[in-house]
Amino acid sequence: MTTPSQWGQPRTSLFTDHYELTMLQAALHSGAAHRASVFEAFARRLPDGRRYGVVGGTGRFLEGLAEFRFGAQELDFLAHNKVVNDETLSWLADFKFSGNVYGYAEGELYFPNSPILTIESTFAQACILETYVLSVLNHDSAIASAASRMIMAAGSRPCIEMGSRRTHEESAVAASRAAVIAGFHSTSNLECGLRYGVLTQGTAAHSFTLLHDSEEEAFRAQVQSMGASTTLLVDTYDVEAAVRKAVEIAGPDLGGVRLDSGDLLAQAHDVRALLDSLGNVNTRITVTSDLDEFAIAALAAAPVDSYGVGTSLVTGSGAPTASMVYKLVSRKGTDGEFRPVAKAAKNKTSVGGKKYALRRLNPRGIATAELVGIGALPENDGNDRPLVHQFMTNGELVPGWTGQAGVQRATARHAASLAEMPGAARRLQRGDPVIPTEYLQSTPAHD
Amino acid sequence: MTTPSQWGQPRTSLFTDHYELTMLQAALHSGAAHRASVFEAFARRLPDGRRYGVVGGTGRFLEGLAEFRFGAQELDFLAHNKVVNDETLSWLADFKFSGNVYGYAEGELYFPNSPILTIESTFAQACILETYVLSVLNHDSAIASAASRMIMAAGSRPCIEMGSRRTHEESAVAASRAAVIAGFHSTSNLECGLRYGVLTQGTAAHSFTLLHDSEEEAFRAQVQSMGASTTLLVDTYDVEAAVRKAVEIAGPDLGGVRLDSGDLLAQAHDVRALLDSLGNVNTRITVTSDLDEFAIAALAAAPVDSYGVGTSLVTGSGAPTASMVYKLVSRKGTDGEFRPVAKAAKNKTSVGGKKYALRRLNPRGIATAELVGIGALPENDGNDRPLVHQFMTNGELVPGWTGQAGVQRATARHAASLAEMPGAARRLQRGDPVIPTEYLQSTPAHD
Repeated sequence: MTTPSQWGQPRTSLFTDHYELTMLQAALHSGAAHRASVFEAFARRLPDGRRYGVVGGTGRFLEGLAEFRFGAQELDFLAHNKVVNDETLSWLADFKFSGNVYGYAEGELYFPNSPILTIESTFAQACILETYVLSVLNHDSAIASAASRMIMAAGSRPCIEMGSRRTHEESAVAASRAAVIAGFHSTSNLECGLRYGVLTQGTAAHSFTLLHDSEEEAFRAQVQSMGASTTLLVDTYDVEAAVRKAVEIAGPDLGGVRLDSGDLLAQAHDVRALLDSLGNVNTRITVTSDLDEFAIAALAAAPVDSYGVGTSLVTGSGAPTASMVYKLVSRKGTDGEFRPVAKAAKNKTSVGGKKYALRRLNPRGIATAELVGIGALPENDGNDRPLVHQFMTNGELVPGWTGQAGVQRATARHAASLAEMPGAARRLQRGDPVIPTEYLQSTPAHD
Repeated sequence: MTTPSQWGQPRTSLFTDHYELTMLQAALHSGAAHRASVFEAFARRLPDGRRYGVVGGTGRFLEGLAEFRFGAQELDFLAHNKVVNDETLSWLADFKFSGNVYGYAEGELYFPNSPILTIESTFAQACILETYVLSVLNHDSAIASAASRMIMAAGSRPCIEMGSRRTHEESAVAASRAAVIAGFHSTSNLECGLRYGVLTQGTAAHSFTLLHDSEEEAFRAQVQSMGASTTLLVDTYDVEAAVRKAVEIAGPDLGGVRLDSGDLLAQAHDVRALLDSLGNVNTRITVTSDLDEFAIAALAAAPVDSYGVGTSLVTGSGAPTASMVYKLVSRKGTDGEFRPVAKAAKNKTSVGGKKYALRRLNPRGIATAELVGIGALPENDGNDRPLVHQFMTNGELVPGWTGQAGVQRATARHAASLAEMPGAARRLQRGDPVIPTEYLQSTPAHD
């Protein structure tokens, strides 16, 4: 596995809103900065009409947390621009996160108010992580949630992530990673291949055909150089003529053809019939061109072998960000006792206190509810699956959640969690969350 | 100015789709890789109903192009995973872009088919830049385009970019930069402050109030530590009580109060009246809470002094990506002559050849059309403003377009270009592009 510093990831400490550090300064002044505190990342709602969300980014956050330090360049910037005072600068110079991190496994499904990530530390330590926690989780979860629906729509046919050009270059790497966690077979993004060991794949672009004096010349170059198992792009000029030429040049072992425009449904049928009539029964058909989960579902009856998905994957298919928030839910008072806290403003109620969460499963192993509570875990009747894991203990990473192994584990977790869901989870139509979130108020709200 | 390598930006060369490198391999095999080629980035359409687009990302692309090299780690990855063959690996090992780059100034307005970025080089060199060019331009232009509408809606009131937590941590930096280019006054993103020298700002979060035993204690800590000119968040519990307390603690010099929930219109009126009645006529009111250009416009008559904009800015307010494409438009043939090329597939027509572009201005300096043509510039009647600049000459950067100076120049360019637009550009309602794109077919399509 490679690590963020090996691929040159910059410090992560300034991926932070100005006010996190000024709040730190004011809290250091009042002394409250050192109060033991519990912050929780959760979503009050799913994107409009979605049946479930998928946790993405936990591994990336844990990797980046190790780099969350304030070196000379960062401190100079903060000092020169008078963002914070000297007392705060020296606190930051010594900062290394030393608290506990708990949360849902990456790849797990989540629902409204699921306690997705919990940070237990001092106010000072937990406060300054807010922006970074949310940037990573909100982006990656939005992509993973959209990707999961595409995978369901695609059934057993593989999906290839191809959206890098439609999003920021670093988002593209994270989006590829999130797509693979949700079940994508591979990605076109080479940097994601390097960082996370995921399979990369590609075909060819129209420019490659246009570069050559004829489509035939282009196909011949590609087949000679890449082998007959390559995938040829057949819609630059005339699809039927291109398919005939492709088969003539590559022979019966031609790996695949790609269709990137026009009426994909009709074309897939025509091209399949043509390929079969030419004896190329094993040549696969890949379709691309602004696919989303609905377009994929609409192609279910077409003879398509794989889907390349771009724009709508990396933009979250209508929900480009998850709406997770990061709230102080519990902190010690002057009496040394933890107490839950919550603001009173309209329409933004939070439930205070550190939470546990369980997925209630019926005797057939099908999920029926998301149980969230404060305090001690209730008696387990054997069918409740605990959802909260510990990722970091006193600043030390619990192994297995990061890097390439973390991605593989998250992929497995996602598949298993999805398999537990009732059938309604597979409906693409708008609706309510597929299972309700229920609060258990069994024990008093102490930690 | 700091440079990408100083802030630890990773190599940019693998922000690339797999197929760019396999096309390179096949083109090296056929020999066509070395054909002089012109690629162009443009958008066939604006996001649905938008009146104009704003070019963002040009400076970032030029900064990253300098880092677009293939070192040992990248080459090892490509070799180990058999992405390309040895001939291609040695070509990549020697790669340093040595062509020309032309395009619209960053901050400039664009319209359907404006030639936003043109790369003139060999096919090999220009092809492998495709994904990176588009990632940067599509993301940053989407944000700049949305930000520009927010600025228009805000009129003379400053907008503060606060969306970092709603997008990938690196997108957040680029989004802040794009927002500032479009006219945002400042950002909450510290990393953007460090890299591009833009002003950072912040207030306080609800957690800061909840941390303390009372709102009064929290306000007192913030005012004592940050000074009376700070902005206090007044909607954690009861707004009226909080404003009274804030004034009591900070006195007549209290800088501002922030409202983050509820009916912002009614609250702004109430809070302004209360502040004035307490003698705090200079205390500013900042509003936040899921603002977009429409919500900002709806607050035009409210006594609001500044807007904090988050989610809808960093997600492009409904258009999270610009739909720019990067197409081979012209290349030399075996006869050594340049010829325009374009694919024939349905609904995706491109016009071949290297382009110029002019903004036609009427005698009062108001834009009336976007003129795009192939070949020699037409006679200028004195009212046409040339839009295409040269950014790189034989691989050497033309100074002035990158870093902090590049951001300042782009900000000025955007303001000047917007001032040229007819009044309809300021309409937030859906409509056609505010000026038409016209093709001039004056000269034959040679370069």
